[in-house]
Amino acid sequence: MSEAAETLDGWYSLHLFYAVDWATFRLVPEDEREAMINEFKTFINDKASAREQQAGDYALYNITGQKADILLWYLRPEMKELNEIENELNKLRIADFFIQTYSYVSVIELGNYLAGKSDEDPYQNPHVRARLYPELPRTEYICFYPMDKRRNETYNWYMLPMEERKKLMYNHGMIGRQYAGKIKQFITGSVGFDDFEWGVTLFSDDVLQFKKIVYEMRFDETTARYGEFGGFYIGHILKTDDFEHFFAI
Amino acid sequence: MSEAAETLDGWYSLHLFYAVDWATFRLVPEDEREAMINEFKTFINDKASAREQQAGDYALYNITGQKADILLWYLRPEMKELNEIENELNKLRIADFFIQTYSYVSVIELGNYLAGKSDEDPYQNPHVRARLYPELPRTEYICFYPMDKRRNETYNWYMLPMEERKKLMYNHGMIGRQYAGKIKQFITGSVGFDDFEWGVTLFSDDVLQFKKIVYEMRFDETTARYGEFGGFYIGHILKTDDFEHFFAI
Amino acid sequence: MSEAAETLDGWYSLHLFYAVDWATFRLVPEDEREAMINEFKTFINDKASAREQQAGDYALYNITGQKADILLWYLRPEMKELNEIENELNKLRIADFFIQTYSYVSVIELGNYLAGKSDEDPYQNPHVRARLYPELPRTEYICFYPMDKRRNETYNWYMLPMEERKKLMYNHGMIGRQYAGKIKQFITGSVGFDDFEWGVTLFSDDVLQFKKIVYEMRFDETTARYGEFGGFYIGHILKTDDFEHFFAI
Amino acid sequence: MSEAAETLDGWYSLHLFYAVDWATFRLVPEDEREAMINEFKTFINDKASAREQQAGDYALYNITGQKADILLWYLRPEMKELNEIENELNKLRIADFFIQTYSYVSVIELGNYLAGKSDEDPYQNPHVRARLYPELPRTEYICFYPMDKRRNETYNWYMLPMEERKKLMYNHGMIGRQYAGKIKQFITGSVGFDDFEWGVTLFSDDVLQFKKIVYEMRFDETTARYGEFGGFYIGHILKTDDFEHFFAI
Amino acid sequence: MSEAAETLDGWYSLHLFYAVDWATFRLVPEDEREAMINEFKTFINDKASAREQQAGDYALYNITGQKADILLWYLRPEMKELNEIENELNKLRIADFFIQTYSYVSVIELGNYLAGKSDEDPYQNPHVRARLYPELPRTEYICFYPMDKRRNETYNWYMLPMEERKKLMYNHGMIGRQYAGKIKQFITGSVGFDDFEWGVTLFSDDVLQFKKIVYEMRFDETTARYGEFGGFYIGHILKTDDFEHFFAI
Repeated sequence: MSEAAETLDGWYSLHLFYAVDWATFRLVPEDEREAMINEFKTFINDKASAREQQAGDYALYNITGQKADILLWYLRPEMKELNEIENELNKLRIADFFIQTYSYVSVIELGNYLAGKSDEDPYQNPHVRARLYPELPRTEYICFYPMDKRRNETYNWYMLPMEERKKLMYNHGMIGRQYAGKIKQFITGSVGFDDFEWGVTLFSDDVLQFKKIVYEMRFDETTARYGEFGGFYIGHILKTDDFEHFFAI
Repeated sequence: MSEAAETLDGWYSLHLFYAVDWATFRLVPEDEREAMINEFKTFINDKASAREQQAGDYALYNITGQKADILLWYLRPEMKELNEIENELNKLRIADFFIQTYSYVSVIELGNYLAGKSDEDPYQNPHVRARLYPELPRTEYICFYPMDKRRNETYNWYMLPMEERKKLMYNHGMIGRQYAGKIKQFITGSVGFDDFEWGVTLFSDDVLQFKKIVYEMRFDETTARYGEFGGFYIGHILKTDDFEHFFAI
Repeated sequence: MSEAAETLDGWYSLHLFYAVDWATFRLVPEDEREAMINEFKTFINDKASAREQQAGDYALYNITGQKADILLWYLRPEMKELNEIENELNKLRIADFFIQTYSYVSVIELGNYLAGKSDEDPYQNPHVRARLYPELPRTEYICFYPMDKRRNETYNWYMLPMEERKKLMYNHGMIGRQYAGKIKQFITGSVGFDDFEWGVTLFSDDVLQFKKIVYEMRFDETTARYGEFGGFYIGHILKTDDFEHFFAI
Repeated sequence: MSEAAETLDGWYSLHLFYAVDWATFRLVPEDEREAMINEFKTFINDKASAREQQAGDYALYNITGQKADILLWYLRPEMKELNEIENELNKLRIADFFIQTYSYVSVIELGNYLAGKSDEDPYQNPHVRARLYPELPRTEYICFYPMDKRRNETYNWYMLPMEERKKLMYNHGMIGRQYAGKIKQFITGSVGFDDFEWGVTLFSDDVLQFKKIVYEMRFDETTARYGEFGGFYIGHILKTDDFEHFFAI
Repeated sequence: MSEAAETLDGWYSLHLFYAVDWATFRLVPEDEREAMINEFKTFINDKASAREQQAGDYALYNITGQKADILLWYLRPEMKELNEIENELNKLRIADFFIQTYSYVSVIELGNYLAGKSDEDPYQNPHVRARLYPELPRTEYICFYPMDKRRNETYNWYMLPMEERKKLMYNHGMIGRQYAGKIKQFITGSVGFDDFEWGVTLFSDDVLQFKKIVYEMRFDETTARYGEFGGFYIGHILKTDDFEHFFAI
C-alpha cells in the first residue's frame, strides 16, 4: 500500500452553474422581472455578509459560451450550509428561469507534499488559515475545471512512492509560482464528494494567463502523464450593480 | 477459470434520486402543496414501519449540488416490494414535481473474502444477520457511489487467483476498520442488476470522513489498480419533520 | 482471417423500454384512462395470439428503478412485423404517456461453438427449433443486458483461433448449465442490427439467480478477458390482469 | 509519413433520422394531418425527380426500434443542395411533429486500394460513374452505421505502410464480394465532414444478410484489429403510397 | 519537464452553434417574424462594423445536418466583448427560437514551432499581425472541429522533446501548405478555455478540400499517433441578404 498524502481541509465548496432561459423570462412583466432581480440581488448581498464575518465567501461570474450563463461559487464552514444556500437559491423567483447545467461539491484543500514537518498545528498557522478560509479575489476573469490523477496500466499516480509524487508535485508547484501576482489559484478536494478528485479555480485580471499556465503545466510530467481533465469553464465578473444590464431583456 | 468468491445476500436495495421542479411546484396553490407534502410524509412514515418489523429500512437525504435534491434509499426482503414502493412513490401527487435523475438496483452483500470456513450456516449467525438485514443509521450525512473492479489488459481483477484477491481485500478492509466509529459502510452487490458491480453507501456525522476514507483507499492497491468509480453523491439528512421547511417555496 | 462461427437464427426480436409519464397521465379523466388501459390490454392480448400459432411470442415486465417502467419484448418471424408492432404500439392512446427510454433490435441466435457436425439440417431438428422459435417463460423476474466481445490490443476475441474460442465458449457454457432449472437464458444476436453484438435475456422466479450467474461468469476467462457489457435491466412480471393496479393513479 | 490512399468522390450525402411525435400529431385535426402528409409526399416526390435526371437520389425507410422512426437519405452533386433540402424539409408542416435524432454528412467514396493504375480518367469510366453517382436500390431493408479505422497504441491503421493496408483491404473486399447479389453496399467518406470517418449503407431484401456480412467481417483482421463502430440503424422500406397507413393515428 | 512551445495570441474567439426551432417560430405572426429577422440582421450588421475598424470579425454559416442550423463565429480583442455579444445575441427576440447546441471558447493562436529566432517583436510584424487579427474569408463553405494532442501511455505528445515536436509539426505544416489557395486555415488555442486544446476553422469554396486535407493529414504521424478529434461541423455561407429565404416558413 502506497502512503496517502495528508491534506488540510478548510471551507466546504459548492460551484453552481446556471443558464438563463431568456425566452421564458421575457414573458414576465417588466416590474415583476425587476422584483425578481432585486430579490436575487438581496440574496447575493445577504449571503455576502459571511465574508465580513470570515465565515465563508462567494464569487459570481458570467460564463462565456453556451455551457452556462452564471457561475455562483459558495464557501462555508459546514457542508449543510451549502445545502441550505442551494435550496434557498433554487426557490428564488428568478430561479424559475435558471436552468441547472453543472455543479461541483468539494472542500478547500492544501496538500502536504510541500509541507515541512513540525510540531505546530497547521490549522493555527495564520498563513495556512488564510489559504484554508480565503477571501476570494474580485478579478475580471475566473476559470474552473475539475481533474483526476490517472490510474492507467503503466502510469498510475496512486501506485507511485510518496517520494516520487513529492518530487513531481514540487516541480509542478514551481510552475505555479511563476504565475504569482498574475493568477490566484484555489484547489478544492472532491474525492468522495463529486465525480473528479479535485476542482481548480483560478482568478486573474488577464484571461490569457489561464491559457498560459494550463498549457505550460501540460508539459510538466505530473500533468502530461498523470493529469486527466473535465470540462473548462471561463467567466467574466458579474457584479450585483450590473444586474440591471445583465438581466435586461 | 478463476474461483468466484461466494457472497451472502440480504435485503434488496433501491436508491432513488429525484430533483424537485420548484418552478412548477410554485404554481400549485399553497393548501394543495401542503396536502401533497403531507401525503408524501404519510408515505415515508407508513413505509418506515418495516423498520420496526425488521422487514426493511429506508434513508432520506437532501443531496448537495445539482445531481439531485432527494435521495430515498429503500431496503426490502423481496425485489418486487421495491417495484411496488417505487410505483407507489411515483404516483404520489408530489411526484408530479419530482424529476427522476438516477437510481440504483442492488442487494446488501457480504463478501466471503474475510470469512473463516465453518459448518455454521452464516445466515443464522446474528452478527451476519445484523449486517445483511441492517438497521440504517440516522447520521447527518450520507455518501453513495457505484463501482466496478477493473478488467484491463494488464490488471484484471477477475483473472487474479483467489488467494491474491483475498490478500488485497484483507488490506483494503484494514483501512476501512480504521474508520470504525466514524463511518458506517454498506456494500450492495449489483452484478446482473445494474450498470456497476457494487454500490457503496456510507453514513457519518462528519462529512469530511467520506473524503478521508475514499482518498486513503485510493492509494491501496485494490483500488489504485482495480477500482473504477461511477458518480459520487453527498447528502444531508432530511427528516419528515423538516418537510415544511424543505418544501416551502 | 479468423474463421467466423456460423450461427443459427430464429425469430427476430425487439425489446422496447418505456417510462410512464404519470404526471401527465393523471390529468386524463378516469374513464378515458380506463379506456386507454383497456385498449392497451387488447393490444397485448391480440398480439399474444401469435404464441398459440407458434408465430412469435412476447414478454411484459415492470422494470425496477428509473431506467424504465415497462419492458415489452416481441419475437416474430419477420423483422418488418416488429416495425408494424412498434408503430401500432406507439400510436395507442396510452402511448401518448409513454416515454421511450431504450430499445434493442436482434434475432434469436444459437452459436455453433457447441454443435457437432452432421448432415442433418439443424433447422429441422425439433430441439433446435424449440430454441430458435421459443415459447417464453412467465417467470416472476426478467433480466436483460446487451454485450460485446472485446477487441482490445492484447486480448482480441475476433483474432483468436476458432479452436481457442470453442474451448472458451465450452467452459462458459458449463457455468450456464449449472443454472438449468433456475434460469432460462435467451441469446439474441445483434451484430449489424444494434449497437452491441448480443442481447442476453434471462428469466427466473428467483431474482438473486441473475446476480449469481452473471457474477460467477465474470471470473470465467471468456467474460473476464473478452466480455464488455451495456446496461442491466431487471423487472418483475406485469400481467394484463394487473393493469388496473399498475396504471391506477 | 504514411501514404494516403487517394479516393474518388461522387455525390454528397446526407442521412437524416427523425422520430415522429405521435402524441402531439394526434392533436392535429384529421384533415390538417392529411394535408401535412400530402405536403410531405409531394416533397418526397418532387425531390425524387433528381433520380430521373441523374442528379441525385434518395431512400426512405422506417427505422426499427426507438432510435428513430424515419430515415431519409439524400444524394446530390453539391453539398449546398443538401443544406437546401434539409432546410426545406425541416419547414414542412409535418416536420413540426418530427424530432431530429441523428444525421450524417458524407460523400460517396471509392477507395483506390483495389484500383489498378492506368492513364484513364476514372471519372470518365462508366463503371466508376455508376458507383459514384448511383441509382439506389429499393430493397425491403436498409442498414446504416458509421465507422472509424482505429489509431491505437499498438494497432494504428494510419501508421501501416500502404502495401499492408492494400493487402488488408483486399481480403476485406473479398468477403464483401461473397455477398454480391444479396447486399448492395455504399461507402460514404466523412473525414472532415462528420464525427466518424466513413458511413456504410447496406441494402437487402433479406435483413439477416446484414448480420451475416457484418459478423463475418468482424473476424477479418481489417475489422477485428482496426474497425471501430458507431450506432447501427436497421429499417424497412417506407413508400409514399404507404404514408396513409404509416401516419394514420 | 518538457519545454512548452510559446504561442502568439491574437483575437479572442467564440464559436456559437444554434438550431432553429421551426415548429415554434411558425406560430409567430408573419409580421412579427419579419421584425425579428430584421432585428437579427441589424445585430449582425452592427457587430460587423468591427471588421472595418480592424477590431474583430465574424462569420455566419448554415450548418449541414442536425447538429445545428447556424454557426456564428466572433473574434474580438477582449474576451469580455465576446460575453457581451453572446448575451446581446441571446436576448434578441429571434433567439427565443434558437436552441443552443454547441459553443467553443478560444483565442487565435500561432505556434512557435516554425518560428525563427530574432530580436524582432513578432506582435509588430505585419505578416504575424495579419494572422493574429485576421480578416475572415467569405468562402462558400466552412469546417470546424476541436482537437487534442494525445497523452497516451506509449505515445504522449507532451512528453516528447521539443526537437521531436518541432520536426513533427514541420512535416504536418508541409501538408497544410499544399492546400494554400484552396483552403484558409485558422487555429485557435483553447487550453484552459474549453474542453479541447485547439479549435480548427477551415474556409474553402470547394467543400471536398476539407475532406482531402483532413484525410491526408490523418496519415501524418503528428495526427496518426497524437491527434484526437471532437465533432466535425460543416456549413454553407449564410448571408444577411438571404435571411428572408432562410427564415421563411
